[in-house]
Amino acid sequence: MTQQATTLMGIDWGTSNRRAYLLDEQGGLVRQHDDHEGILHVAGDFEGSLKNLLDALEIERADIVMSGMVGSRNGWREAPYLSTDRPVAQLAQAMTEIGTSIPGVRVRVVPGYRYVDPHGLPDVMRGEETQVFGALALGAPDGWFLLPGTHSKWVRVEAGRIAEFSTFMTGELYALMSEHGTLSKVMGARESVPEAFAAGLEAARHGGFTHTAFCCRALVVADMMPAAHTASYLSGLLIGTEMHEVLRRGAGAMTSPVQVVGSAALSSRYLSALELLGIPARAWQPDGVYVAALRALFNLPG
Amino acid sequence: MTQQATTLMGIDWGTSNRRAYLLDEQGGLVRQHDDHEGILHVAGDFEGSLKNLLDALEIERADIVMSGMVGSRNGWREAPYLSTDRPVAQLAQAMTEIGTSIPGVRVRVVPGYRYVDPHGLPDVMRGEETQVFGALALGAPDGWFLLPGTHSKWVRVEAGRIAEFSTFMTGELYALMSEHGTLSKVMGARESVPEAFAAGLEAARHGGFTHTAFCCRALVVADMMPAAHTASYLSGLLIGTEMHEVLRRGAGAMTSPVQVVGSAALSSRYLSALELLGIPARAWQPDGVYVAALRALFNLPG
Repeated sequence: MTQQATTLMGIDWGTSNRRAYLLDEQGGLVRQHDDHEGILHVAGDFEGSLKNLLDALEIERADIVMSGMVGSRNGWREAPYLSTDRPVAQLAQAMTEIGTSIPGVRVRVVPGYRYVDPHGLPDVMRGEETQVFGALALGAPDGWFLLPGTHSKWVRVEAGRIAEFSTFMTGELYALMSEHGTLSKVMGARESVPEAFAAGLEAARHGGFTHTAFCCRALVVADMMPAAHTASYLSGLLIGTEMHEVLRRGAGAMTSPVQVVGSAALSSRYLSALELLGIPARAWQPDGVYVAALRALFNLPG
Repeated sequence: MTQQATTLMGIDWGTSNRRAYLLDEQGGLVRQHDDHEGILHVAGDFEGSLKNLLDALEIERADIVMSGMVGSRNGWREAPYLSTDRPVAQLAQAMTEIGTSIPGVRVRVVPGYRYVDPHGLPDVMRGEETQVFGALALGAPDGWFLLPGTHSKWVRVEAGRIAEFSTFMTGELYALMSEHGTLSKVMGARESVPEAFAAGLEAARHGGFTHTAFCCRALVVADMMPAAHTASYLSGLLIGTEMHEVLRRGAGAMTSPVQVVGSAALSSRYLSALELLGIPARAWQPDGVYVAALRALFNLPG
């Protein structure tokens, strides 16, 4: 066996999925590999799971940087949350090294951030900081970043620091309510209905979600909306709820376009909502952003 | 068989449960019977289900007034929603008669109310109007009525009319989130922790529920709250969310105590929350209130 060069590798290792990115020495993406070996699926054997991945990719020597839930308490090794006064650019120095028995392999984890708002309410992120880091490395300006997902994050960056961020359980609540409970029973055909989405987005302006969610049912019961519109209306309500809350809190800061970092599937409804609300947005493809973050973490030229 | 007198009977016939109340000619409660023959369980055979109930109670002749989901589109017969400009006292005249093939039995259903708020968002109630009617018959003053439940209702009464009402999916969201999803996994022992309930109630002041629900998780992840406090905190968040929303909208109208009509089990957390927020409240036992409503519907002296 000939001596392999060291492979630069990034792993976005989340709860349900794992995405590996292999870079060449100049930081170019040479290969990407996705699987479902999320932290819930490896039964605690992270080293074994990583070893299998390296074998499958025929990698002998690797310098590996990981982000996401793999660095949480329920992951491989906890990388303690950084306070938001630590600039994003310091993520490279703040990684936690994990010793392994795999020869020729170095493993580090990017820490997440923790934030406590002016009312004392905490919030946490783990994984999204790497996306923000990557977008900044690609030249994204200060202002709001939106990272859609099961728990969507709104992150405001100011001069290289995270000034504030808020998580919304939008995706999870949508899933819970469309699979269980009262609304699931009237959701009917679940067509995608743009005007119902827009109506939900608008309704979110006028009340909190725990009330407007019932209005969604009342619209059907009172013959003001077909049952098949419920799913789109609920989606508009949930996305509108987070947007109006962010607008209320940070209206002054919405001076540059919202930087939306997420897959097309996750981002499309958010981009529609931003357009309907007249808020400029820029969409970032998350793989390109992640690779840019990896280049910065490996200290390669951007 | 001797000819029986006509029994006055009220049935609170909901989605999952049925409660029957038998009155004497003066409107005194002589018997109560609860079962699980909710509208979901009778498979469309409402007449057969009622016949069985009458047989079980050995009733031959009856004048029956029903309220609740039995009068909905998915119930026995739809009793169309009243507009809120119809005074509550007119419920007696607005009942829908249902013909049956059971000899000696008259069946009527109380209609619900429909309301459209100033922003065009609709809300509906069916069953709660009878409780409000009963409390008013017992001398409850104008102001806010709170009816806890899977979908809690806040109803503001002004000079015998429902001026506005709002439904909150508090109970349903608590059930969904404690049985499924992210928070259910950290809920741990689900102790009842008064200080965690109070903290959730306070946190609800500072953000919408789709965000504060994630703070609940972040408190645990950031070691600011034991996992076993999550259930009480979530309960405080949800109840606080509805209370702060009602306070924001109707602050001026909170001049008399909130009239809380519900079982002790359903009402206790709401009464704690009202006390913590310094809002005076009066608790009404729902069976007594229902019997008062029946007396008014049967046109008996209060």
